[in-house]
Amino acid sequence: MSALLERIRSVVGPAGLITAAGEAAPYTTDWRKRYVGVPLAVVKPATTAEVAQVVRACAEARVAIVPQGGNTGLCGAATPDASGSQVVLNLSRMNRVREVDAHNNTITAEAGCVLASLQKAAEEAGRLFPLSLASEGSCEIGGNLSTNAGGTAVLRYGNARDLVLGLEVVLPSGDIWDGLRGLRKDNTGYDLKQLFVGAEGTLGVITAAVLKLFPLPRSRATAVVALQDPESALELLKRTLEEGGERLTGFELFSDFCLSLVLKHFKDVAAPFARRFPHYVLMELSDTRPGNELANLAESILGAALEEKRILDAAIAQSDTQARAFWKLREFISEAQAHEGPNIKHDVSIPISAIPEFIRTTDAELARAHPGVRMVTFGHVGDGNLHYNVSAPGGVAPDAFVKETAAINRIVHDSVSQFRGSISAEHGLGQLKREEIRRYKSSLELELMRKIKGVLDPNGIMNPGKVL
Amino acid sequence: MSALLERIRSVVGPAGLITAAGEAAPYTTDWRKRYVGVPLAVVKPATTAEVAQVVRACAEARVAIVPQGGNTGLCGAATPDASGSQVVLNLSRMNRVREVDAHNNTITAEAGCVLASLQKAAEEAGRLFPLSLASEGSCEIGGNLSTNAGGTAVLRYGNARDLVLGLEVVLPSGDIWDGLRGLRKDNTGYDLKQLFVGAEGTLGVITAAVLKLFPLPRSRATAVVALQDPESALELLKRTLEEGGERLTGFELFSDFCLSLVLKHFKDVAAPFARRFPHYVLMELSDTRPGNELANLAESILGAALEEKRILDAAIAQSDTQARAFWKLREFISEAQAHEGPNIKHDVSIPISAIPEFIRTTDAELARAHPGVRMVTFGHVGDGNLHYNVSAPGGVAPDAFVKETAAINRIVHDSVSQFRGSISAEHGLGQLKREEIRRYKSSLELELMRKIKGVLDPNGIMNPGKVL
Repeated sequence: MSALLERIRSVVGPAGLITAAGEAAPYTTDWRKRYVGVPLAVVKPATTAEVAQVVRACAEARVAIVPQGGNTGLCGAATPDASGSQVVLNLSRMNRVREVDAHNNTITAEAGCVLASLQKAAEEAGRLFPLSLASEGSCEIGGNLSTNAGGTAVLRYGNARDLVLGLEVVLPSGDIWDGLRGLRKDNTGYDLKQLFVGAEGTLGVITAAVLKLFPLPRSRATAVVALQDPESALELLKRTLEEGGERLTGFELFSDFCLSLVLKHFKDVAAPFARRFPHYVLMELSDTRPGNELANLAESILGAALEEKRILDAAIAQSDTQARAFWKLREFISEAQAHEGPNIKHDVSIPISAIPEFIRTTDAELARAHPGVRMVTFGHVGDGNLHYNVSAPGGVAPDAFVKETAAINRIVHDSVSQFRGSISAEHGLGQLKREEIRRYKSSLELELMRKIKGVLDPNGIMNPGKVL
Repeated sequence: MSALLERIRSVVGPAGLITAAGEAAPYTTDWRKRYVGVPLAVVKPATTAEVAQVVRACAEARVAIVPQGGNTGLCGAATPDASGSQVVLNLSRMNRVREVDAHNNTITAEAGCVLASLQKAAEEAGRLFPLSLASEGSCEIGGNLSTNAGGTAVLRYGNARDLVLGLEVVLPSGDIWDGLRGLRKDNTGYDLKQLFVGAEGTLGVITAAVLKLFPLPRSRATAVVALQDPESALELLKRTLEEGGERLTGFELFSDFCLSLVLKHFKDVAAPFARRFPHYVLMELSDTRPGNELANLAESILGAALEEKRILDAAIAQSDTQARAFWKLREFISEAQAHEGPNIKHDVSIPISAIPEFIRTTDAELARAHPGVRMVTFGHVGDGNLHYNVSAPGGVAPDAFVKETAAINRIVHDSVSQFRGSISAEHGLGQLKREEIRRYKSSLELELMRKIKGVLDPNGIMNPGKVL
């Protein structure tokens, strides 16, 4: 065992150090099984002090560190390279909720807290921690912050960045920066925490955070709405915001092709309407007021829209069970498309007003260049985020289709760029889009990013090969 | 005229260059008349390209730049030093609203837009731009962003930082960074705009911004509530959030001494109740729903609190006129205390749960060390921000009292620090608190700030002597 690993073991103990390949396996492959790394070791510290000592040891040895949370990232940011020289620093053992302050509406948690546990701790204190995404049963808050995670509630509560008041970070030197403030207003210089949020572990290791809590909703109204086209979805979004304000906590669009995939590949789901329509919106309203007011509001908004023929049909959930069934129609799309065959995924955002035009022109361009492709278009339209996935034409062999990835990415991302959108809305860059972004971000902006990286991590030991 | 000024005049024209001392005067003194500078010139560019050329010329000549908006800052960040060598770069001529996008809920505006004009442009599009502060008729959005302005609506809508989606910035090199994105989700590397928000012009010049808009409220309920102590205010805040959620858009505490000053120094105000109470809260609820629901909610919350004796009395405004009259009781405090005599001001924030304890212990400490001082305690308790001002004992000469400033600041700021608060909640550091912050921020954090400054502005030409 090398001197570095001996030193690390003396810090974290035998339970915190994994060197056997078999034991390390769960930490060395990304969620989508796209990247497989070979680490020097997987280290699992139990305290911030241990993280600091491990980072200092690595810094002195000039050994690269790959920070890792629940390892559910979709762009390979938490996977080491294949050199056998990088240390995976997994934060999962640091999973304590340190404090809940109901008057201050804050929760202080360690990086390894699973998102669902955090949601639960908030709820037990009569509060809402609103970050919500598909992997919430496995992903950890440190990873959520490092990737600035999004999800379904962003239109109302913002991204992970918007939910954090303070951070504790181990810097690339091994120093601990205590920025664990629970303040809504603090203007005493540069807001350093912003640097570490969304940096995907390239500037330091987030070890704990003070997060905002919100009042717990006591009523919900969930509806599936049938629509002619994405324009109608925008119109409904506008109307609902104007009428209901920020009671609107979910607004998800999906096409009939998405629905058909879910109905085909899952048994325990039911079509929301007796007939089929071109597009659907899953809409959720929430309120701290209990009772039927919210359901009445949903009925009034949707009733008026039906009367004006702006929507084609609407079904409001009559029970929690039915609301959950509606959500499944949306949530199962990702898995359904995987069952259907290969598809090339894009996690993009567009100014909301441009979404219909983006879909129309990009669909047309793809159909022209790649005849027969089937568009799996769905996503968080309420915040401008589309999962704009391209599924193989029927009968095309998976391998043949996957070869088209670069060409299809080029069409989609060029179009995104023309609409002043982003080629990574909520999944980050990691290693997957590190090269791709150079085409779309100005060299000036890339240079600014490199300067920040250079000054905070001069030896380049923090997650090299990711983001930049 | 120097070669630099010749070059600048060739860029901005004669209308954009002020060198005569008399004409320059309005730009060389801060709002509180605490600092008086002597600039090399005042430059007023009309476009981003002009700003870039001016900055490049100054960079090449190694001449310092002091960015300035409406010049309403309270910490002297926009005032040049007395050397006669700094250029004041005033953005007021860049005052166009470039675009309002109602579907995307965004407005794109130039730095020189007066906040009130921006609010008006939003309202004309049926939207709310929620940033609201005392100087809104004069302050400009570029300054609001550079100081991360706060105000009365932060508990619901956040600070200026939370309201910005994209920025256009002229860097210290004179390069223009186009980060004018109107996206709610964008995770393609470090969020550079965060660096410039709240940097008080020390890292670059904000020239334009894409800002978030919100649904326009169609009903409001405003109440003044009488309370025994700050603890009761916290209890009411908690209850109101739990019941009404984020309908709560204002929650301001003030003591009876504050009310007495307003009643003494202003003619057209009326006491809210027939008798006096120790403390008051001004509470505002807003909703996109029209009608009486909101007033009923306020009545129900306050009625229950009265019955449980958690509050002492409550008056709900019966008209817009009465609501405005209630707001005056709070808004006039700043001016009323100035009429009363000298006072030493503190703009601090504290975790909300610790506010009563902070007030109690700090009041006691001040009374012990400076017998007879009168506390003018008021502020945005809903977001933890207190304006905790110390007024001279009756009969003490202004000059004698002002000499106590450092000693009184020490007591207040040390106490803030013990409660893990901030010595500048919403006013920034500028030159006023640049030295003071060194006592309260870790050397590690100050060093990180200096590193960021050094890499973005290696020649130190951006607003030297401010913040750092």
